[in-house]
Amino acid sequence: MTSSTPPELTLDLIRSAAAGLAGVAHHTPTVRSRTLDAQVSAEVLVKCESFQRGGSFKFRGAYTYVAAHLDEVRQRGVCTVSSGNHAQAVAITARNLGLRCAVLMPHDAPAAKLEATRSYGAQVEQYDRFSMPQAQAGAAFAERTGLTMVPAYNHPLIAAGAGTAVLEVAGQSSAVDVLLAPIGGGGLISGCGTAVKALSPTATVIGVEAAASAVTQRSLRAGQRVEIELTPHLADGQMLTTPGSWTFGIMQRVVDDVVLVTDDEIRAAMRFLFDRMKLVVEPSGAAACAALLAGKVDVAGQRVAVIVSGGNIGVDRFGDLMTEEASAAVRGVPRPHLR
Amino acid sequence: MTSSTPPELTLDLIRSAAAGLAGVAHHTPTVRSRTLDAQVSAEVLVKCESFQRGGSFKFRGAYTYVAAHLDEVRQRGVCTVSSGNHAQAVAITARNLGLRCAVLMPHDAPAAKLEATRSYGAQVEQYDRFSMPQAQAGAAFAERTGLTMVPAYNHPLIAAGAGTAVLEVAGQSSAVDVLLAPIGGGGLISGCGTAVKALSPTATVIGVEAAASAVTQRSLRAGQRVEIELTPHLADGQMLTTPGSWTFGIMQRVVDDVVLVTDDEIRAAMRFLFDRMKLVVEPSGAAACAALLAGKVDVAGQRVAVIVSGGNIGVDRFGDLMTEEASAAVRGVPRPHLR
Repeated sequence: MTSSTPPELTLDLIRSAAAGLAGVAHHTPTVRSRTLDAQVSAEVLVKCESFQRGGSFKFRGAYTYVAAHLDEVRQRGVCTVSSGNHAQAVAITARNLGLRCAVLMPHDAPAAKLEATRSYGAQVEQYDRFSMPQAQAGAAFAERTGLTMVPAYNHPLIAAGAGTAVLEVAGQSSAVDVLLAPIGGGGLISGCGTAVKALSPTATVIGVEAAASAVTQRSLRAGQRVEIELTPHLADGQMLTTPGSWTFGIMQRVVDDVVLVTDDEIRAAMRFLFDRMKLVVEPSGAAACAALLAGKVDVAGQRVAVIVSGGNIGVDRFGDLMTEEASAAVRGVPRPHLR
Repeated sequence: MTSSTPPELTLDLIRSAAAGLAGVAHHTPTVRSRTLDAQVSAEVLVKCESFQRGGSFKFRGAYTYVAAHLDEVRQRGVCTVSSGNHAQAVAITARNLGLRCAVLMPHDAPAAKLEATRSYGAQVEQYDRFSMPQAQAGAAFAERTGLTMVPAYNHPLIAAGAGTAVLEVAGQSSAVDVLLAPIGGGGLISGCGTAVKALSPTATVIGVEAAASAVTQRSLRAGQRVEIELTPHLADGQMLTTPGSWTFGIMQRVVDDVVLVTDDEIRAAMRFLFDRMKLVVEPSGAAACAALLAGKVDVAGQRVAVIVSGGNIGVDRFGDLMTEEASAAVRGVPRPHLR
């Protein structure tokens, strides 16, 4: 398989990705909380990709893509452009397969993610994402380095890898009625949404994005990809000027609705996940839970799978965000666990 | 079965406890970290009882004990005395089985544990643990309330329940060479140690306690239970004046060694578990990992099970401890993940 003939994203492709990941990726835990269930009157299955290798779901797609292009990348090595989680995923994949690796990361990427990516052996360069679109910066980087670019989301193999997370949830229970997943570039929800709908055609797939961006919600409503200016917000894993050209078509097919969460709602969800579920979750990783806890989706009586997409937040940044969260609570932003 | 004829602690009793807990307690995840494995040159299986109901391993024992005494407690209700985790476990058990419940907690128990215990429907009273031994305070409390006391650790059914955690680790892998578990009253290590040695007679069982206490280490070396004055330290789940009268005999049989960890080492382990493994762990829950990370036990080349016994620490207290940890790092206490 070469990059010139991308496969179609189907349940079979996702199952084949799962076979390739067996023994390489972690089968991450799905955890439950009676407090959460009671609060939303539903049966909630929290799929914890925070425990995936590299601390997020990204490894599933990166490894799947690179393993499918081994002949090409063995000579050239790999590179990518990413705010952090995909960078770590590509770096771990490269180390695993013995490949050269370089990564272009935004200058405002969290220090913990920069450090982690370097620790996996990748060479790291930085750029200003507020002055240059990611795609353009990435293309120039690949050109200059001569390395094979591993896409962060905009490819069927990346989405198929990400979709394997939902197969693991399905393996532990009967079909889910609702899937809630954060939307960044759209790879995660394309893969998971395709798998969920193939397994249970009546299931509802809800994407969650930052209210400060809302680019996917607006694009889906417009029936075409719109472009926005980037404004800084908390969920650094969900910061794009436009949906992926390929993922957008998939999302048009499998995403039933997109709901929005504020930074305050994300911080409150992070506190809930820590206090009540003992989970370390980064802001974009908490977006889907935030939508649930803030009542953005009515799931009463349903079986709901929620993807916690990553946990890459250092102790110190977490502490800063929780201090802000305490201030938000004083301003009157409700804490879900105090309802 | 009545409290007057306690059963013998055997692998069969632990298996029978596991059968009773099926569908009631969580089968908690066992997680791995390549960083941790590399650091100690071993295969480390981290059993996360932080994800157990009530946030610690305690539910396993409390439910096992109460379910075995249903005839008696259905009329009278239950009570206990505990710094927090056992209190929550008894409260959840009582709510599950529809029993009255009152709990005596030390006045310095963390606010999160007091609040959580109340939230499960238990009536909470407080006492000063530095002026009155726990056993004496508990006996007076049971006498006054007329409720049946659920022991926190000093009973075969409590230990058998706790020991079920290790059966779940064993179910996921071949036998372990080393078990590392924190020691408070001794119920956890009695149950887990008994199970591990029954499954693999050559396995080594290492207990970990706070250096500020060391009461079990000193008692085992003396061949009899010694008494100490309580001094405040970080691991509030490991604060006793003397080992349990019954658990001590079991520990003499199954515990090969006891190692000590300082508050600084516990804080550093909590940071490592958060940053690198995305786990929320309370101080006593991190003690066994702290011993591993601080190099108190040589496990090179071994398959090691480490019990993370609980995760009941609120965001705010966690933040305070991590601020102290950062100061300790400045003082020169090595951070395990920076080695």
